[in-house]
Amino acid sequence: MMLKLFDLAGRDPMLRFSPYCWRVKMALAHKAQEPATIAWRFHEKSALPGAPENQKVPVLVDSGTVIADSTAIAFHLEQRYANGPSLFGGPGGEAHAHFILAWADSILIPAMAPIVAPNVLPHLHPDDQDYFRTSREHRFGTTLEQLGETSAERLPAFRALLAPMRITLGKQAFLGGDEPSYADYGVFGCFQWARCVGTPDLLAPGDTLRVWLDEMLDLFGGLARDAVVANAA
Amino acid sequence: MMLKLFDLAGRDPMLRFSPYCWRVKMALAHKAQEPATIAWRFHEKSALPGAPENQKVPVLVDSGTVIADSTAIAFHLEQRYANGPSLFGGPGGEAHAHFILAWADSILIPAMAPIVAPNVLPHLHPDDQDYFRTSREHRFGTTLEQLGETSAERLPAFRALLAPMRITLGKQAFLGGDEPSYADYGVFGCFQWARCVGTPDLLAPGDTLRVWLDEMLDLFGGLARDAVVANAA
Repeated sequence: MMLKLFDLAGRDPMLRFSPYCWRVKMALAHKAQEPATIAWRFHEKSALPGAPENQKVPVLVDSGTVIADSTAIAFHLEQRYANGPSLFGGPGGEAHAHFILAWADSILIPAMAPIVAPNVLPHLHPDDQDYFRTSREHRFGTTLEQLGETSAERLPAFRALLAPMRITLGKQAFLGGDEPSYADYGVFGCFQWARCVGTPDLLAPGDTLRVWLDEMLDLFGGLARDAVVANAA
Repeated sequence: MMLKLFDLAGRDPMLRFSPYCWRVKMALAHKAQEPATIAWRFHEKSALPGAPENQKVPVLVDSGTVIADSTAIAFHLEQRYANGPSLFGGPGGEAHAHFILAWADSILIPAMAPIVAPNVLPHLHPDDQDYFRTSREHRFGTTLEQLGETSAERLPAFRALLAPMRITLGKQAFLGGDEPSYADYGVFGCFQWARCVGTPDLLAPGDTLRVWLDEMLDLFGGLARDAVVANAA
């Protein structure tokens, strides 16, 4: 096997929930590549290729070359597997994708994290739980339990942030146009993160984004739909 | 002259402040086209080509073909002047640009409008002022004067929304990559709208976005920098 992906796992080694790792798994499938995925936990920093510089996943090993960071991996795949379907649709697509990924990272994930994080904790490997609680409670300035109690209040503001997605997907099937692009995987990874740890539905019942989300779950023979999903805490 | 652009004007017919018209003026310059621009006011609906279907500007007349809506005009220019520099950088660039434009329309403009609208009013043609006040006060649920008094309070939230811009422009000179694309014009038009009506600086003194904004003002021989700017109200 030429491709190895270090993929964040929970207590159950088959529970793979990292939004950034999902971006890469979708991008690999887009390029018709089937990596060996290796379950990795937050406390296994020294087991990562390229450690200690590399401290987190995803890390891809492609025929001996080590690439860290989901965006860097996507650009690597686009170049290395240039004969496969494009992840970006040309130079303009690459440039504009940076904005969509930046939006996902700086707006979507920070709005989603206080809702999702309380669901992550119980599914982590026991040796990851202290690290996760301490780092997240420091970031959010409150306990994960308090966040969990107030997550319903956060939903309206979260849903309002998705307006640019709804407008775009009212005009075309995917952010990438007629076919999904890495921009779709960038956003979808966030929703799959929530789904894998058993977060209750983030979208309102009639939200038009459900059509896109269903399409994303169906891609590549249901790669994301068939993923192991934890029960709600 | 083969290209005519109907362009929103103030009391001073040379004051041209519409964000959507600025998108089109930048796109025309990108394609090295010099349109005749025709000052148009909100009350001159019947003077628009394609009225009564067309009710607002920009409207472009290109050798007898009438195109309304800034995005439709941009795609028209990309196709009609295909030999000029691309506005989108290929199919992926076009698809992803829809998201950036949707973000500008659904997030940026609604956050900027309560700050900018009070500055627009005094510079409008007298026959436009009642329409503008009534429609905007209905939209915002308060008077333009009250909005004006609270605009400083809105700046921190507005500036926080620009995070995806800062991240992207930390990696590349323009949203379009090494060169500006229509996505840059889509966002820049909003800043130029504020600037033309004399809105005090929206960016904090050290904001890294100032570099991009200066570059945008300098494009095409200073087309936007040299525009007529109203004095602050």
